[in-house]
Amino acid sequence: MNTEELGALGQQLRVDSVRAAAAAGSGHPTSSMSAADLVAVLFAHHLRYDFERPEHPANDRFVLSKGHASPLLYSAYKAAGAVEDGELLTFRKLGSRLEGHPTPRRLPWVETATGSLGQGLPVGVGIALAGKRLDRADYRVWVLCGDSELAEGSIWEAAEHASYEHLDNLTAIVDVNRLGQRGPTRHGHDLDAYARRFQAFGWHTIQIDGHDVDKIDRAYGEAISTTGQPTVILARTLKGKGVAAVEDREGLHGKPLPDADEAIAELGGPRDLRVRVSEPSAAAVLRSATTDAVRLPRYDLGDEVATRDAFGAALAALGTARGDVVALDGEVGDSTRTEEFGKEHPDRFFECYIAEQQLVAAAVGLATRGWVPYASTFAAFLSRAHDFVRMASISGSGINLVGSHAGVAIGQDGPSQMGLEDLAMFRSVYGSTVLYPCDANQTARLVAQMAGLDGIRYLRTSRGKDPVIYGPDEEFPVGGSKVLRSGEHDRLTVVAAGVTVHEALAAADRLAQDGIAVRVIDLYSVKPVDAETLSRAAEETGCLMTVEDHHEQGGLGDAVAEAFGDGRPVPRLVRLAVRTMPGSAAPDEQLHAAGIDAAGIEAAAKLLVEEAVVR
Amino acid sequence: MNTEELGALGQQLRVDSVRAAAAAGSGHPTSSMSAADLVAVLFAHHLRYDFERPEHPANDRFVLSKGHASPLLYSAYKAAGAVEDGELLTFRKLGSRLEGHPTPRRLPWVETATGSLGQGLPVGVGIALAGKRLDRADYRVWVLCGDSELAEGSIWEAAEHASYEHLDNLTAIVDVNRLGQRGPTRHGHDLDAYARRFQAFGWHTIQIDGHDVDKIDRAYGEAISTTGQPTVILARTLKGKGVAAVEDREGLHGKPLPDADEAIAELGGPRDLRVRVSEPSAAAVLRSATTDAVRLPRYDLGDEVATRDAFGAALAALGTARGDVVALDGEVGDSTRTEEFGKEHPDRFFECYIAEQQLVAAAVGLATRGWVPYASTFAAFLSRAHDFVRMASISGSGINLVGSHAGVAIGQDGPSQMGLEDLAMFRSVYGSTVLYPCDANQTARLVAQMAGLDGIRYLRTSRGKDPVIYGPDEEFPVGGSKVLRSGEHDRLTVVAAGVTVHEALAAADRLAQDGIAVRVIDLYSVKPVDAETLSRAAEETGCLMTVEDHHEQGGLGDAVAEAFGDGRPVPRLVRLAVRTMPGSAAPDEQLHAAGIDAAGIEAAAKLLVEEAVVR
Repeated sequence: MNTEELGALGQQLRVDSVRAAAAAGSGHPTSSMSAADLVAVLFAHHLRYDFERPEHPANDRFVLSKGHASPLLYSAYKAAGAVEDGELLTFRKLGSRLEGHPTPRRLPWVETATGSLGQGLPVGVGIALAGKRLDRADYRVWVLCGDSELAEGSIWEAAEHASYEHLDNLTAIVDVNRLGQRGPTRHGHDLDAYARRFQAFGWHTIQIDGHDVDKIDRAYGEAISTTGQPTVILARTLKGKGVAAVEDREGLHGKPLPDADEAIAELGGPRDLRVRVSEPSAAAVLRSATTDAVRLPRYDLGDEVATRDAFGAALAALGTARGDVVALDGEVGDSTRTEEFGKEHPDRFFECYIAEQQLVAAAVGLATRGWVPYASTFAAFLSRAHDFVRMASISGSGINLVGSHAGVAIGQDGPSQMGLEDLAMFRSVYGSTVLYPCDANQTARLVAQMAGLDGIRYLRTSRGKDPVIYGPDEEFPVGGSKVLRSGEHDRLTVVAAGVTVHEALAAADRLAQDGIAVRVIDLYSVKPVDAETLSRAAEETGCLMTVEDHHEQGGLGDAVAEAFGDGRPVPRLVRLAVRTMPGSAAPDEQLHAAGIDAAGIEAAAKLLVEEAVVR
Repeated sequence: MNTEELGALGQQLRVDSVRAAAAAGSGHPTSSMSAADLVAVLFAHHLRYDFERPEHPANDRFVLSKGHASPLLYSAYKAAGAVEDGELLTFRKLGSRLEGHPTPRRLPWVETATGSLGQGLPVGVGIALAGKRLDRADYRVWVLCGDSELAEGSIWEAAEHASYEHLDNLTAIVDVNRLGQRGPTRHGHDLDAYARRFQAFGWHTIQIDGHDVDKIDRAYGEAISTTGQPTVILARTLKGKGVAAVEDREGLHGKPLPDADEAIAELGGPRDLRVRVSEPSAAAVLRSATTDAVRLPRYDLGDEVATRDAFGAALAALGTARGDVVALDGEVGDSTRTEEFGKEHPDRFFECYIAEQQLVAAAVGLATRGWVPYASTFAAFLSRAHDFVRMASISGSGINLVGSHAGVAIGQDGPSQMGLEDLAMFRSVYGSTVLYPCDANQTARLVAQMAGLDGIRYLRTSRGKDPVIYGPDEEFPVGGSKVLRSGEHDRLTVVAAGVTVHEALAAADRLAQDGIAVRVIDLYSVKPVDAETLSRAAEETGCLMTVEDHHEQGGLGDAVAEAFGDGRPVPRLVRLAVRTMPGSAAPDEQLHAAGIDAAGIEAAAKLLVEEAVVR
């Protein structure tokens, strides 16, 4: 396309963005109009993408980090022939694939769900990492960012990660339209301010007029030919460009244009230009597709092993069997034991340093290219990436997250290092799986199983050693549980997971000596939960006591209650959990202070018997 | 102190750090040793602090962002005469104030809990903001950071915020000891790499040898005399400095020294130097202590008002009555309505732009200086700051967080903008209060009440308009609820909050027409929950059906179940919640698709009647 045609294409994208938002009665046309020329030139001259085969391994990847500019994206899809004009006008309507913010659940050409700002670039870094270090393919990753979102720290985690890994296959395009949602950004049109920041973080920077299609064209060319570092194109643009009533004006974010017909006329009227997006290169992606039988570590009954140790060993073994498994570390791999994987499979090990948002985003990016990521840090610090996990679930992303150092049982380090809200966080994520093993063989099995599940999968591991109570050939289906103590005269069921399983067993033994029979269930699958076994225990014992090394909200107690949330009769429920703010102390002192050790369980059970709460 | 004495003080801090960790059998002496000279010079020559009066308004503030170097902090407290040697040796033991990571709950001289990296500097920015813009006092804020934590994006949110606000009362000291937990950092001893980044973000930078006490002294002087911008001192140090067996070596993070006695001898043996920390200036802090009666907005029954609108108006009114109330916005103040406060009280309004971690950290920092912050963004985006909220609860910080755009009821924008996990997140936080009003008068009352509570207080607001159902003089105690429909023959209780209250009322009216009496409870206080009213409803109706615009885990359903977690008989429980991934659609279509509108409630109730689940 020549200059004139590119300009016309940009105008068409504006017109279609205005039309889509007008039809919807909502949306972000002005944020689309500022970036229209940037997208027009990209789609017409530089993107290599087969819309018929979105899974094509050599496709370039385009990420709309400023996800609210979805009208622009969908208008570009229309220009590329992927979406019909009729569908464009279903924007934001019930059942439409064209949502307010794009998601890959609905549209095959969307790499990752955006709409929470500052996430597209971090995920783009993950995709570029896959291209550079794993796929070894020459596809490029293009990420269109807004200027407002550069205030998010996650952008700078991504900037650091990308330059450190020399991701010259990554180009960020920043639509510097000067205006955020409620007013001007901190830096307005000061492109130098952004350039200084990106340069300091090791990026090649290019500053252009974002409405000059020839300059845009040359900037993309320069980005492609830049080696050894990622490139950011800082484009000076105007929000609402092309329509005088809205151009560069405040107070018009996220609103359809006041007079769409007039605006469309001002933009030169409707057009139906088609852009032929280039084909990806035919070069195959190098992919190790090895999948051998997994030879998981095997532990002997009675051995004292921390579940984090079993996780590390199992992950390394899984990596040996499966060439598609990769591991990511938040600079605590010696603690989480992800390092074991790193030692055996350094080519598939990604050190993300202390940047948990980027850790999870990189995992999401790697997963888009078919890799099976396991990302790990302390359970407590995964809360740093909560919004990324939330958005990953909207994407339908299949990632494995492993949080170590669960609960007060970590001991002396104190509350800042204790995962005490992680079960609540991961349970509340749409479509998630939450696993919490108590012994080494169980851990190993669950680590291997996770890889085959859909959605967000979370595994919680413990710092301290506990005895192995299951044989190495025992199976642990997701959604199942294990009944560890059971008898006809059980007066109570103790439901535990992780470290409290061992406390519950000790308590049950002591209670048995006092003639109080107690059932013990190991609820290693916290979500989905084994409602059937819990129901049976409810019928047979009448009372379920949950014991968890977690705050009382959102964890095991709530998971058990939820199993009875369908109107069936509910047993009596008692919950032991961490209700006070812990300090520093030895692990056993911590469990005791929280009332979730064997003595606490025993005392609670006896109280229930004495008060005749249990039969 | 002269050069020699300062050097000796540094050695003493190392010796005491080694002793404390040796006594504990755990801790981070090597990370303490690298920063010992930096802290020695600060305490001896520059910090102005009255240890007898930690609340002194003119005190400087010292934040240990690298919280794991707590042995160094406690050793400095000892040198300052605030802690006895005997107490120093209780480090990390049960009941000791000297926890693995410092917390203000235990120690009055600690400003904020640290231990999750990358948080001390953002909170320090909040304290410096208070000094600069509110207190107008000349106290300085000193933050000691590790080099590893500079990988956290939150550091760059803080860097951006501090320079934009010209916080020349803030000094960051970075202990560049080159080694993270599991190995070298990305930049090792390349101080230039860090300097480039801070300079690009608008900071004055100073590079020094962090073991040269004279250079340290001059650097602090330069920081104090620098105006118009914050200063960062990048100090080249060695981890484990002074003990050959551990100095600058990998694999020794978080471990006591192999031979403490030998190390202490190598460091020159125990000393008992005392440092006289300078007194703060006597200058009083300017503080508007106005507290008039709050004239909250009053809404008429039947008016259609969004709870976010009522929040904005109530917050502005609260700001008029109380001079200590401040508001913080994540660049969505036009949506959350925090902007209303900004219009009326611009001097107490803080625009934090799109940086939710910094938004919450700034609130925590302001709260340390006695201000009462209300920080607001979309409920969904508060998940970005989860770890900051968690740490704030460990601090015992009193902050108000308000999340707008709750649930699927926001409509067309789609799932990325919907708060669907926020109740779970905030319920699981230690000592939190979670409020979810359904009408404008209720919102106004709760906004005012929040200010007087302890700990983390969360209020959830809605985007759309709903009718006012309570009079302006109705009271809404925290921990209470409102029974809106009740009769002798109620067969079921519907427990709702926020938008579902209106749906529940409509459903109850329709069901009544079909002869099915239904009780309706407005559970506006989600935590603490009104167990008494729920118990009565359980006894009288036998079945509680929760209806919530939130995922089924961790929200209203779990809150109600938790009220029966003490062994009492549990009613039948049914929960209606958002169980599928929403797309874009109109608000009423969304509620219908999720099955939580009046029709969904009616249908569920009839099913329970037909299946004789309810009596």
